[in-house]
Amino acid sequence: MHKLPRRIEDYGPLRAYAPATDPAPCRSKRLDDLDAAIAACELSDGATVSFHHHLRNGDAVLNMVLDRLAARGLKDLHVAATSIFPVHAPLIGHIRNGTVTRLSANFISGPVGEAISHGLVPHPVVLRTHGGRARALDMGELQIDVAFVAAPAADEMGNLSGRIGTTACGTLGYPLTDVEVARRVVAVTDTLVPFPTPSIDIPQGKVDHVVAVDRIGDPSGIASGTTTPATDPVSTGIGDRAAAVIAASGLLTDGFSFQTGAGGISLCTAAAVGRRMADEGITGSFCAGGITGFHVDMLNAGLFRGLMDVQCFDLEAVRSYQSDPRHQMMSAATYAAPHIGGAVVDRVDAVVLGAAEVDLTFNVNVTTKAGGIVIGGSGGHADTAAGARLTLVTTRLTAAGFAKIVPQVGTLTTPGATVDVVVTDHGIAVNPLRADLAERLHAAGLPICGIDALCDQATRLATRTAPPAASGRVVAVSEYRDGSVTDVIRQIADNRTGA
Amino acid sequence: MHKLPRRIEDYGPLRAYAPATDPAPCRSKRLDDLDAAIAACELSDGATVSFHHHLRNGDAVLNMVLDRLAARGLKDLHVAATSIFPVHAPLIGHIRNGTVTRLSANFISGPVGEAISHGLVPHPVVLRTHGGRARALDMGELQIDVAFVAAPAADEMGNLSGRIGTTACGTLGYPLTDVEVARRVVAVTDTLVPFPTPSIDIPQGKVDHVVAVDRIGDPSGIASGTTTPATDPVSTGIGDRAAAVIAASGLLTDGFSFQTGAGGISLCTAAAVGRRMADEGITGSFCAGGITGFHVDMLNAGLFRGLMDVQCFDLEAVRSYQSDPRHQMMSAATYAAPHIGGAVVDRVDAVVLGAAEVDLTFNVNVTTKAGGIVIGGSGGHADTAAGARLTLVTTRLTAAGFAKIVPQVGTLTTPGATVDVVVTDHGIAVNPLRADLAERLHAAGLPICGIDALCDQATRLATRTAPPAASGRVVAVSEYRDGSVTDVIRQIADNRTGA
Repeated sequence: MHKLPRRIEDYGPLRAYAPATDPAPCRSKRLDDLDAAIAACELSDGATVSFHHHLRNGDAVLNMVLDRLAARGLKDLHVAATSIFPVHAPLIGHIRNGTVTRLSANFISGPVGEAISHGLVPHPVVLRTHGGRARALDMGELQIDVAFVAAPAADEMGNLSGRIGTTACGTLGYPLTDVEVARRVVAVTDTLVPFPTPSIDIPQGKVDHVVAVDRIGDPSGIASGTTTPATDPVSTGIGDRAAAVIAASGLLTDGFSFQTGAGGISLCTAAAVGRRMADEGITGSFCAGGITGFHVDMLNAGLFRGLMDVQCFDLEAVRSYQSDPRHQMMSAATYAAPHIGGAVVDRVDAVVLGAAEVDLTFNVNVTTKAGGIVIGGSGGHADTAAGARLTLVTTRLTAAGFAKIVPQVGTLTTPGATVDVVVTDHGIAVNPLRADLAERLHAAGLPICGIDALCDQATRLATRTAPPAASGRVVAVSEYRDGSVTDVIRQIADNRTGA
Repeated sequence: MHKLPRRIEDYGPLRAYAPATDPAPCRSKRLDDLDAAIAACELSDGATVSFHHHLRNGDAVLNMVLDRLAARGLKDLHVAATSIFPVHAPLIGHIRNGTVTRLSANFISGPVGEAISHGLVPHPVVLRTHGGRARALDMGELQIDVAFVAAPAADEMGNLSGRIGTTACGTLGYPLTDVEVARRVVAVTDTLVPFPTPSIDIPQGKVDHVVAVDRIGDPSGIASGTTTPATDPVSTGIGDRAAAVIAASGLLTDGFSFQTGAGGISLCTAAAVGRRMADEGITGSFCAGGITGFHVDMLNAGLFRGLMDVQCFDLEAVRSYQSDPRHQMMSAATYAAPHIGGAVVDRVDAVVLGAAEVDLTFNVNVTTKAGGIVIGGSGGHADTAAGARLTLVTTRLTAAGFAKIVPQVGTLTTPGATVDVVVTDHGIAVNPLRADLAERLHAAGLPICGIDALCDQATRLATRTAPPAASGRVVAVSEYRDGSVTDVIRQIADNRTGA
């Protein structure tokens, strides 16, 4: 080695190379078990741990991790999950024993939601939208100490894939956002593959530790709920009507972009829209959001050029993502974050959404059922409603005997200002803010009525009345995508179980 | 909307939702031209602008951007490029007129290198390794104000692809690291595609602005230099001998991982290794680094399970990356960063590297030619040498009349402590630090000699003597991957043009 000058002008301090006595070794990120990973992350009381819901009601990772956190005696944890499903009922025990005292999620269904309404969680639960959570992460409002990523496949260096493994779930859009900001990332897998993982969805640079477990979940739980079009005449009637609204709106032209939920009526609408596109030779640009086999069929039929998939809703979608490059992953932030002024939701022409309740100002509730029990939350509902050029809410007038078009929603999830039209089995109501749309539908010969008429009709058809609103302490806060509060959920008296 | 409480205990300040008077609009990221992008980035004198070299000697973006920066009167800029090629000769003018006064790169060939050696750049040029640059970025030693990304395809929201477009270059591993840390990212494309880009390599969340230009480069310049195995007997002889060394090392078993450069002798070695693998039924795990059509052929022949590709070296590799999911992109950081203790280079069993000079302590120079003119730099040379379990340097004893095995290298690029064996047309020398390897080669009947014997022989064969080392001011600093300095390059007197 040449003799080096002690200092070099305009370069700064010079440190001469010396053969490393202790070179950074190639360190496998694999640890023996969850306990080792928790210890390595130096978690302490009050920490925030995050989870994603790609395995939906088949997820085993949240319960497994919380069991270990509890066994290690950790207290006052904040569980920041993207969604909570019935399978996560054991979380209730961890809240009761003080392991977890804070909870935030974008969607909560099943026993945990019911328990929240009865005052389970000491601090108010924060319900966000998918985009609002991404925004809160990006802006540091929500800080994650450790993101636990259920990884269908991983190598020991932390290259993760959702496409292979016994519990393949497809895209990993939600953790893709968490791993950008979490202080530490622990991948939990049941399919450890040789380096390098053959179809990497999250690269090793974002992952700190890898833990192999027997199983991360039950693949059959990934497709929870229906993910096929409904076939009953009421649903297909609503779907046909909604498709007619989309056609009349003028948006159904080449390049059309579309999002629907996975529910039966939403997919009925998609089917009817698809038939119109095929008949008229229209090629859309993309379908976005959670993706089902039905969307895959539309792609393969040439009706769309691509799919932007934050989460696969069924195994047909998983298979498509495995093999079709037109079927692309997007992160939660790219999907729906409101502060970037260009999330994918902002590029959607028409979105078809469901509702638990819609009220006279077109506000939508997808958070609580009649009586105030938490049954869901926005997920991407408020995000897509705000982003899409045309937001349709499709619903029957009544369900389980309760009116679904009501004077005022039990919980305001999605503001009426972002909902353009409500399509029901008894008529179509256009938001007065969208006089242009009303004109187009009128010109197309579609029967339009006022939302008040639908509300009256729903009241007439209802056989049960919603219990009065709960009045206890605030047990949950429904945050809009920008972090403002649309509503609060209050504790239900213990002698009531809700509707 | 329900009346909300003014404050909620344990929640924090509450801001009630109000319909946004000015919702974040869906803003296209497309700007009219480079001037608009430069203005939007609020660049000022002294800023650092980064560029990548995926278009290699076909790149038009660096020159184009610097022309506009100069036209806008910016001064004292720092150009932080991953590599500089002959096509970037106009950079010399921008340095002469004071637009650019600092330069850093991992590899510099052509007129810019020659001019550096003659004192062109006022401040010392910093030559890093690919991994060292990624480390410097990660640790904030190198801060990028604006990363200009030559994007073969982009949509107006900033989803970038290297796989399509008239100047498709394949993977985008180098900018993938820059966009993680740059204050602003400007994508420059000649193929604007409808949203969403069909095969996204860099997602929109990492990109601030998109500018369409007539052409970002010349696809025929992507494959610069040879990317096919040499066929002359000297080269194939070295290749066969190197392959025999790899076989004798004991590493050539199932799961073998391999890296070679794109030079003729390196690919000869790869060909010979491939024949041995096929003969013996060995299936390797992956080839890494810059990828050529030859590596693709080995993948398709079933010799390896996958390719980890930071940069496609030719159009055959580009085509493979377009269509084969086993051919995966990795970022510069994942490829080679030294501080993470698990970059892909750390997982490579054997790497075959070239050399301008090798000396008696196995130090390698790939930075300057005889006489001290800058002709390259480490790129991934020092990274892979440090990472791989077996590092082979293959070289002829002489080139252009000069000895290549010398008493002391002109510039120390890659420390001898990381080089295990030198394979030449006149014999094999094993680093004394690797007595175990010498024993294995001996046992396999391979002819081993001392590096001093090779040096003597090279001296005898040489027909020209290297000019004395330059002694002017320090014009460039060769940084090792950990940021320490292996050597400095000094100014050559103006009446000398080097060898």
